[in-house]
Amino acid sequence: MSPSRVEEGKTRGYICPIGGAEDKVGDEVILRRFVELAGGKRARIAVIPTASELRDTGERYEKLFRDLHAGDVRVHAFETRHDCEDELALKALDQATGVFMTGGSQVRLSATLGGTAAAVQLRRMNARGVHVAGTSAGAAFTSEHMIAYGDEGATPRAGMVSLAPGLGLTNRVIVDQHFRQRDRLGRLLTALAFNPFAVGVGLDEDTAAFIGPDETLEVVGSGAITIVDPKKLEFSSIDDARRGHPVCMTGVTLHVLIHGATFQLSTREAVAPRMSRH
Amino acid sequence: MSPSRVEEGKTRGYICPIGGAEDKVGDEVILRRFVELAGGKRARIAVIPTASELRDTGERYEKLFRDLHAGDVRVHAFETRHDCEDELALKALDQATGVFMTGGSQVRLSATLGGTAAAVQLRRMNARGVHVAGTSAGAAFTSEHMIAYGDEGATPRAGMVSLAPGLGLTNRVIVDQHFRQRDRLGRLLTALAFNPFAVGVGLDEDTAAFIGPDETLEVVGSGAITIVDPKKLEFSSIDDARRGHPVCMTGVTLHVLIHGATFQLSTREAVAPRMSRH
Repeated sequence: MSPSRVEEGKTRGYICPIGGAEDKVGDEVILRRFVELAGGKRARIAVIPTASELRDTGERYEKLFRDLHAGDVRVHAFETRHDCEDELALKALDQATGVFMTGGSQVRLSATLGGTAAAVQLRRMNARGVHVAGTSAGAAFTSEHMIAYGDEGATPRAGMVSLAPGLGLTNRVIVDQHFRQRDRLGRLLTALAFNPFAVGVGLDEDTAAFIGPDETLEVVGSGAITIVDPKKLEFSSIDDARRGHPVCMTGVTLHVLIHGATFQLSTREAVAPRMSRH
Repeated sequence: MSPSRVEEGKTRGYICPIGGAEDKVGDEVILRRFVELAGGKRARIAVIPTASELRDTGERYEKLFRDLHAGDVRVHAFETRHDCEDELALKALDQATGVFMTGGSQVRLSATLGGTAAAVQLRRMNARGVHVAGTSAGAAFTSEHMIAYGDEGATPRAGMVSLAPGLGLTNRVIVDQHFRQRDRLGRLLTALAFNPFAVGVGLDEDTAAFIGPDETLEVVGSGAITIVDPKKLEFSSIDDARRGHPVCMTGVTLHVLIHGATFQLSTREAVAPRMSRH
């Protein structure tokens, strides 16, 4: 499921994981930004409600994006693995300039789309410039290594998190959502301790990471993004820790970033937003 | 941790996961084949004993490979994350024509090497033609998605397996080892159910998969390799199943392959070994 190769002369689209519960009645900063990115009045938004068990999730986002004046919005009901091989459905999906995956269960997304023609096409679309956003479960699914489920708590503990392969648009981050609301620092640290190569991105609700083609992540929304960077990790006891016991980790770098701040995923550099001080 | 890109004019080296307990006193079919692949008398074998807690594991394999007339054998003690950034150690590793990772704990391997310069270099070496083998824990670590631990039993059950990011030499397979000896079909099926894009490779002890640059996997050794191919999976209940409950899966293709049989990972075609029938 590795990211598709970006062809010469092309630029990959943005990858926009959202922490869930994004504003839908006020300024709608995140959804509005996504529509603009996808072309505004010329945007063609594809909504994928596969993660959700609710029947009206797709229609709900369709209305939201229409009210934000997106040029065209379609709901693509990939409900079964069979649907994900349907040529007509894939051809329709291929017209989109922006793809939005709703919340629900990330394991429903991976078990339905994983290994199908739809998953391959989504990676190719992103590689040729189509922007892909996902909220909550949809956010978790964007990366190569996805948190499938886990326990609450700030302390990393052996066995508290289960990883699964995701869509694989990027292999630079492991995303967690509802981050502050559900006390998930521990499970994100545990996920990173196994193999400290990726950057942990803890997304509060109503907060999104807009990850550009140059690998700069920009924070958009009303909450914070907690960046957990294990690049300088010196030691972890994950291989010795018994199930349920705390994991020792030394040398983790932490950044808490708010709207307007950025983090460069290649150089691992955090930049605070410009603020006027009194 | 995706596979390094293979440069034009280069061919990636073999990837050789071994199911553990490979023969060390008889014909040594697997180890002998690996030495030949790496250049026989001109082979320079690098042994990485990081997975093992035993002090003499490295020296034991050093002697085995010397007795098989490998031209040069060195043990590379990457014990800490700090070791994995050491320029002199990396320069020495870079001379190898074949890399062998011992058994022990795959999580010790991933937690020690993950995200370090050593991991990057191992992927680059494989991409430019260096062959990489691993036995037991070393086998699990070769792929992008690695089984960290799990439960026994033939039936897939929700929560019975934990995945973690591996070294990422390939993203086409998920490997399990000691397969028949430890009754691991259930956990391999569960691992695949999450996201059915990879091929499950269940390695019996004293049995190896030699995966060539053309993505053909050849079976070598005295046991069997159980190939679990979810390409035609129609349905799995993994997203609904409660922890510990069995997972429903329909349409999985299974092959049990013995010495001399092959499986093509791109076309998903199994070919039995030629046998003389009476």
